[in-house]
Amino acid sequence: MREKRGGRRPGDSGTREAILAAASQQFAQMGYDRASLRSIAAQAGVDPKLVAHFFGKKQQLFIAAVGLPINPAELLPKLLAGNRGTIAARITAVLTDILGRPEIHERMAGLMRAAASEPEVARMVREFLTRELFVPVARYLETDQPQLRLTLVGSQLVGLITARYIVGIEPLASAAPHVIAPVIAETFRRYLVDPLPDGASQE
Amino acid sequence: MREKRGGRRPGDSGTREAILAAASQQFAQMGYDRASLRSIAAQAGVDPKLVAHFFGKKQQLFIAAVGLPINPAELLPKLLAGNRGTIAARITAVLTDILGRPEIHERMAGLMRAAASEPEVARMVREFLTRELFVPVARYLETDQPQLRLTLVGSQLVGLITARYIVGIEPLASAAPHVIAPVIAETFRRYLVDPLPDGASQE
Repeated sequence: MREKRGGRRPGDSGTREAILAAASQQFAQMGYDRASLRSIAAQAGVDPKLVAHFFGKKQQLFIAAVGLPINPAELLPKLLAGNRGTIAARITAVLTDILGRPEIHERMAGLMRAAASEPEVARMVREFLTRELFVPVARYLETDQPQLRLTLVGSQLVGLITARYIVGIEPLASAAPHVIAPVIAETFRRYLVDPLPDGASQE
Repeated sequence: MREKRGGRRPGDSGTREAILAAASQQFAQMGYDRASLRSIAAQAGVDPKLVAHFFGKKQQLFIAAVGLPINPAELLPKLLAGNRGTIAARITAVLTDILGRPEIHERMAGLMRAAASEPEVARMVREFLTRELFVPVARYLETDQPQLRLTLVGSQLVGLITARYIVGIEPLASAAPHVIAPVIAETFRRYLVDPLPDGASQE
């Protein structure tokens, strides 16, 4: 198999793997926000267009490289379709679906374990979810204090994944999705939309 | 220093340490619920009365052995003093106090890290908090589904400690206690008191 100097061709076997390896490394080293398709392509020795050809946007490359079991590009349209006053119902629907798909729970627990022991994993996943999921939701809701609100949501999300899929605390771990989802969704809605106490704007 | 066969005297140096060492080991092996002052005393080679003399009840021995930075015996009177309808205000006051005491945060983070890597630590702390803090609160509130409600509270508590003291996600990590406490307290109140969706009683 011939290779052009300084580059790989679309048909090269291993090209996709080289891009994924470079992406994994750069996302971990630089975080999601600072890593770029251009620098990932350079490290993999391919044209940036080839990265786009295989993976589309940075978002999709991240999901493939990290093995993230949820895709904001699929969740956002469901969350944002409708008026702001009924967001809790749509969060409930999305959560019910996620909680009811056991095939993704193992990957979520694995990512959480990795994030707990490797700060760079925690950072890149946090940056990714913030930019691709939480910020669009906060913009749509036109909330004040979006960063504080998003970290409050994140705290309940991390606690839920830990309790349900890592530690496995009963009866929460086995509770039916349709029981848990509306309760947690209302927490997310409050954190995202309800007025915060005086003094929050100082943060 | 003389020792009586099969026992230590109250004045023995090392007696207190021997009790704490036996307690640490038995709480970890058997959990909080199943460990007893009698079996801990037997392992330490002392009379059970001596354990009571040094540490009082099992609750206080656990706090000393594990280095738990909060004491349910101090928190409960504050939480349960008053009528049920105003519990959120009292949870807010207790949470504001805890979040404002940096000296206990390092110990909380240390315990959480230990619980994340050692299942027996997670179990004994969970059993302790359930029996000595959560169950008395749930009884006072006369709630249905206390176990599910307590694990929901636990999920937000674990997430808050993780986000604020372990990962240190800003701006939540530096947010003023009086800003965070009422928001989290209202979540706890909802999880403890508000009606759960149909189907929860199947769990």
